[in-house]
Amino acid sequence: MRRHRCQIASDTSESGSDSDADNTAMRCISCREEYLPRDAGTCKECYVEAGETEEELKREIDDLKAKISFLRFSSPLDHVNSNSTSFTDVVLISSQDAAASPPIPANKAVLVSRSPVFKAMLENEMEESRSGTIKIADVSYDALRTFVYYLYTAEACLDEQMACDLLVMSEKYQVKHLKSYCEKFLVTKLNPENSLMSYAFAHQHNAKHVLDAALSQITENMDKVTKREEYMELVEKDPRLIVEIYEAYLAKQVNTAARGTSTSKTV
Amino acid sequence: MRRHRCQIASDTSESGSDSDADNTAMRCISCREEYLPRDAGTCKECYVEAGETEEELKREIDDLKAKISFLRFSSPLDHVNSNSTSFTDVVLISSQDAAASPPIPANKAVLVSRSPVFKAMLENEMEESRSGTIKIADVSYDALRTFVYYLYTAEACLDEQMACDLLVMSEKYQVKHLKSYCEKFLVTKLNPENSLMSYAFAHQHNAKHVLDAALSQITENMDKVTKREEYMELVEKDPRLIVEIYEAYLAKQVNTAARGTSTSKTV
Repeated sequence: MRRHRCQIASDTSESGSDSDADNTAMRCISCREEYLPRDAGTCKECYVEAGETEEELKREIDDLKAKISFLRFSSPLDHVNSNSTSFTDVVLISSQDAAASPPIPANKAVLVSRSPVFKAMLENEMEESRSGTIKIADVSYDALRTFVYYLYTAEACLDEQMACDLLVMSEKYQVKHLKSYCEKFLVTKLNPENSLMSYAFAHQHNAKHVLDAALSQITENMDKVTKREEYMELVEKDPRLIVEIYEAYLAKQVNTAARGTSTSKTV
Repeated sequence: MRRHRCQIASDTSESGSDSDADNTAMRCISCREEYLPRDAGTCKECYVEAGETEEELKREIDDLKAKISFLRFSSPLDHVNSNSTSFTDVVLISSQDAAASPPIPANKAVLVSRSPVFKAMLENEMEESRSGTIKIADVSYDALRTFVYYLYTAEACLDEQMACDLLVMSEKYQVKHLKSYCEKFLVTKLNPENSLMSYAFAHQHNAKHVLDAALSQITENMDKVTKREEYMELVEKDPRLIVEIYEAYLAKQVNTAARGTSTSKTV
């Protein structure tokens, strides 16, 4: 059999070859277009198998989605204006908006199950557990409300500010799933303009994914970034961060140069 | 291009043909085996795309699994022998094993969120809500414990008896996700020996998937099934069920006959 394969290889290497092997068009079962042996993908058996695998994966996705919908809680906030009860046993208060905003009802069992910090706080008979009131500092009412909603539903409607606020809270209360959710969102919003501030923010809150993605954006646009006002500010405020950026930039330059040398050697 | 395709078609129809087109073996990118044009599946482009789709689906599955693990509760039963608190506010008691078995702690918020029956019971200040005790009739302690565990985790370790017990409870308390989970399990356990009892059971508890699968098993093995003791018993106890089975069997026979006739006509 190997003989045939070698034959195709030698045929296709002759440009403009008119040999039979080169011109034998087949029809792709998937896109229905004709193609030549050099563009061949799979045999029929593997095509059928791949289709079955895809179907299985889609069924698994449907099952997982049904499970999520079963496990998701309705947030007690949804009950506030309805007649139903939510059996809450604690309230959260944003100390920033304490006077203006209503307390947010919640269940200790939910808070404890989602956050090791709430768990330690509520199980150890601390002030919060006795009073049934948890004061959250440095957060707006809206952010706190969205945070609690996420603990019940694993869902949040984000913009960049909200993603930053929730990332800070998720770091503080060790809600890993929410932190990763915010990081993914912030990575999609990165651009040369916001990369430096995102880098500093990620550094402060141990957001590894944002950090790596922002650093990559910065080192690809060093010329632009170093002309920005935030750059000057950061040089004053936290020069070690700027040093880290230059180190990453240097490493990239050295790598690129090394690749260039090895390529020119092989050519 | 069409010309080439017709050429392949005519070539491959000649058995034992030695023509170039027929013998041009290609190597499948997926299984690495050689194949002939007649066994061609996809072109290279579609192969690559299919691979990307599979990767995307697998990433989605990982994300959904992480979400499930976030949303899943630890069951209060796990806390019983640990030092941690579960902030439960209600207990469930199996009235069948009431004297011998401990009450099972739970959170009203969880019960209400998973079952519309518990919701109505607990939100309407019925006896159960006031006393903080829910008595569950006709169920063993083990089944009740597994039921509560499922409400918290969407997981249960099943055998056939447990699947039947939980199906009955999930029907009574309208926990659809659990009912569907039990039905899927019972369908995998169907065989000609248990098909008739499963059919009767499914009929009694509105388990549509089990009903259809069992009926299909029965009508494929009518000769065996009608010789079984359970058949005689069911004829006595619930003859309408047996009539339904015969009606399904008849419909199948008529269909098969019709297909046979139309096939012989086209031949």
